[in-house]
Amino acid sequence: MLGRFITLEGGEGVGKTTNLTYIKSLLEGRNIPVLLTREPGGTALAEAIRQLLLDREQEVIAEQAELLMMFAARAQHIKHVIKPALAKGIWVLCDRFTDATYAYQGGGRGMDNSVIAWLENFIQEGLRPDLTLLLDAPVQVGMHRAAQRGALDRFESEKIAFFESVRQAYLGIAQQQPERVKVIDATQNLDDVQASISAVMMHLCAHE
Amino acid sequence: MLGRFITLEGGEGVGKTTNLTYIKSLLEGRNIPVLLTREPGGTALAEAIRQLLLDREQEVIAEQAELLMMFAARAQHIKHVIKPALAKGIWVLCDRFTDATYAYQGGGRGMDNSVIAWLENFIQEGLRPDLTLLLDAPVQVGMHRAAQRGALDRFESEKIAFFESVRQAYLGIAQQQPERVKVIDATQNLDDVQASISAVMMHLCAHE
Repeated sequence: MLGRFITLEGGEGVGKTTNLTYIKSLLEGRNIPVLLTREPGGTALAEAIRQLLLDREQEVIAEQAELLMMFAARAQHIKHVIKPALAKGIWVLCDRFTDATYAYQGGGRGMDNSVIAWLENFIQEGLRPDLTLLLDAPVQVGMHRAAQRGALDRFESEKIAFFESVRQAYLGIAQQQPERVKVIDATQNLDDVQASISAVMMHLCAHE
Repeated sequence: MLGRFITLEGGEGVGKTTNLTYIKSLLEGRNIPVLLTREPGGTALAEAIRQLLLDREQEVIAEQAELLMMFAARAQHIKHVIKPALAKGIWVLCDRFTDATYAYQGGGRGMDNSVIAWLENFIQEGLRPDLTLLLDAPVQVGMHRAAQRGALDRFESEKIAFFESVRQAYLGIAQQQPERVKVIDATQNLDDVQASISAVMMHLCAHE
């Protein structure tokens, strides 16, 4: 049987890293094999593209170039990591995926959603996440947490208005695709966040 | 007045490098400011993408990833180099451009031309070369010359059938767009190749 494809999304400082580990442990506790990966990245080439994207020191990246690099890395990730794992029955848990492109390049930078949708269909064909957990918190809350972690990369140092657009784009996707995208209130304390995640995950696992 | 945008195209070993220098000297002889550049490349980021594309040692690159990386580098090159130069009245002489994508990824790898055309319109909008010189030679002739030059990179080490498809794709473009694309017989001796190039160039300059 094919593995399930689960993505975790959200803005800066919403607790993605901590909760990825938690979701992985939840699945492993049910003896489900899980591959934890991330975007942009997941292969040597995709990670090299990630480095080019996140480097704050280099030349200004044209919006179209940024978008195409994201999807180039994603094409590589899908072909060499995600699809082979799913085909072996391994569940794939991915830190960000195409919803992040709609949120950051679409919502944040104002690129046309139809352009993103064209690229999504071009490289993903039928592949879509089975479940997406969206960790949501007001921008000020997330930014405060991210700043406490240390230096901000090129994306994290964008302006507040940018992140507000990112958040609204994410929430818009969740509203349009409520079956796939489950919103988790990330302003709760960690126990409550994880209880919310656990409830959603148990629902998914119950359908196996 | 805007500068003119001239591209030089052709398969392996057809003499692009030598003739780029020749074309540049022709224009400079007429006191036309010229910027010599190349694809993929032309900016620090685009050159970094080029290195990722040409590296033979790394993981296999998915066809979609290769295509998107090519256009990402091109978007960067257009925004930071080509358009600013043309706007200043500088002529841009580019070693390969989008025709190479139609030839290599389209003709060679069999990717759909409509996909390439979509990406071309997305990143170039109205920008197209004013003149393209296509150096043409039978594949065996070009490959023999390229092999004498030393190690072949990832593209150069493709099979003969691949390069035959590349050549036919190039010739197909020239047939469809005879006003823009001028075919130069690269099997002639260098003096005759350059006389052919000079004739085409003088025709373009005469329209200034």
